[in-house]
Amino acid sequence: MTEKTPIVTVTMNPAIDLTCSVPGFAAGTVNRVREHRMDPAGKGVNIAFLLRMFDLPVTVTGFLGTENSGIFERKFDALGITDRFIRVPGETRTGIKVLNADNGETTDINFPGLSPDAPHLEALFEEVRQLAVKDAIVVIGGSLPHGVSPEVVGRLIDIVRTQGARAVVDTSGPALKAAVESVPSLIKPNDDELADLVGRPMENLDDIVAEARRLHGEGIETVAVSLGARGALFLEGSDALMSSPPTIDPVSTVGAGDAMIGGLVAGMALGMPMEDRVRLATALSAATVAQSGPSLESLDMARALESQVVINTITL
Amino acid sequence: MTEKTPIVTVTMNPAIDLTCSVPGFAAGTVNRVREHRMDPAGKGVNIAFLLRMFDLPVTVTGFLGTENSGIFERKFDALGITDRFIRVPGETRTGIKVLNADNGETTDINFPGLSPDAPHLEALFEEVRQLAVKDAIVVIGGSLPHGVSPEVVGRLIDIVRTQGARAVVDTSGPALKAAVESVPSLIKPNDDELADLVGRPMENLDDIVAEARRLHGEGIETVAVSLGARGALFLEGSDALMSSPPTIDPVSTVGAGDAMIGGLVAGMALGMPMEDRVRLATALSAATVAQSGPSLESLDMARALESQVVINTITL
Repeated sequence: MTEKTPIVTVTMNPAIDLTCSVPGFAAGTVNRVREHRMDPAGKGVNIAFLLRMFDLPVTVTGFLGTENSGIFERKFDALGITDRFIRVPGETRTGIKVLNADNGETTDINFPGLSPDAPHLEALFEEVRQLAVKDAIVVIGGSLPHGVSPEVVGRLIDIVRTQGARAVVDTSGPALKAAVESVPSLIKPNDDELADLVGRPMENLDDIVAEARRLHGEGIETVAVSLGARGALFLEGSDALMSSPPTIDPVSTVGAGDAMIGGLVAGMALGMPMEDRVRLATALSAATVAQSGPSLESLDMARALESQVVINTITL
Repeated sequence: MTEKTPIVTVTMNPAIDLTCSVPGFAAGTVNRVREHRMDPAGKGVNIAFLLRMFDLPVTVTGFLGTENSGIFERKFDALGITDRFIRVPGETRTGIKVLNADNGETTDINFPGLSPDAPHLEALFEEVRQLAVKDAIVVIGGSLPHGVSPEVVGRLIDIVRTQGARAVVDTSGPALKAAVESVPSLIKPNDDELADLVGRPMENLDDIVAEARRLHGEGIETVAVSLGARGALFLEGSDALMSSPPTIDPVSTVGAGDAMIGGLVAGMALGMPMEDRVRLATALSAATVAQSGPSLESLDMARALESQVVINTITL
């Protein structure tokens, strides 16, 4: 048996998703929740859940509020995920999604999150330094907590690279900008995030390919650009692939990007060739769009969709 | 030193109050919470908090969900309240109050609560049997959880009476009807709840006094009827008092009734004469209306208002 690739996910700003169904929801009235569910979430957390379905070893870190960490701890325990989150006083933010089936409206009520201070950041750097063993994959995902500067993402990537591990980054805005400067192994902006990174709107697919090539040329081994229902573009080595997902009934795009990263990372850890990784990532993302929650319950649907993913080589 | 009167409060359907301030709150949009607070609540729980300000010994029981009991346990611990709540699998209900300062609108989002089963009910009866020692005061407050019949309130009062303790009841609808049949020591409906109990609207104050007398005649030692800003009526023995609160700037009536019960019970436990009890209860209730939360932070304001409460004797 070969040693499995250690995988670490870093979530600096996780969230508790509270999804509730409230028929006829209206502001200024007394509303009754018919059904609700509460899920631990955040990019790195969602990705860790997915990776465990491939039986890959996963350690999670980042910042978790001491006051409501139980929901995370119980799920990490149940799934066999190693919990190395730095505890910060206060509550991990909660995002309430009120779904009104009567008119299809969604109302978001987002609570503020944690404010980690300098010692918490140092503790995270030290944790990542210990976890980023040679050839490990370290996924840095999601937004930054209040008061944490984008440069922290660059610093984390530097630590990962110095240790000989691979940094996979899924973030946006200034954090993505800072990440690119530290040259991670993989980034996966969507077209809007790429435009924001480049500082101008993308004209067409050729334009997107050109910008992805430029980023690839700067040393980022794999550049993926997700394009919603149109699929995704993947550049790696001298290869460029465009994958198109099968047509599905979209329910919610929440978690689709996380599933794509999860598929790419699982494929890396399992030593799959590029085309297989792309196929897997695209199928996982499509399966996530076909359901309501941010995390898949099983791999069944993605497995069924894999053969329907169409992959075309793009001539550069 | 004399032995202090043991006080027990029973809350079958407690709640977590999550109050959040969301300027510009609108359905169908993404809203950001500016400030929020989460408080353990429920009639018996609020009353227990108030009684601890008088340094009276309080034991709390009822049903508490195992999944989110921490917020209750921490506050009971901090205030020195003895926790004898029966644990029920699941979550104690949460009530979200979204306050929009831009238009003064309040939006309530109420989550479903626990569903205790027959063994949980038996455990509660046994707990109350043990706690209702001779001359103890047992306050039964609030609504009934899903699936619990109103007769349970009658059964609890029977247990309290059999043990030689005094039952104070603050509930409404069918639960109040069932309570009255078991003849508790004190009830405190408001005018609407009294009308609902009697089965017809109340015509005027004379009508209310007449119905209160009738209930008193059936054996209920103290009959209080709260009348909002007009004050409250109190019948006990051969006395009938009408108390009028001082004029205050009303902020929120949440918890006003609980404060009145708390004042009456504190007065009973401290052996205060009727007029002093009525004055205290009225001042506590007014002080609660002058603030936003369900529970007073201190007795200061109520103490300051006490001398401004006007009490008139009603000739029966």
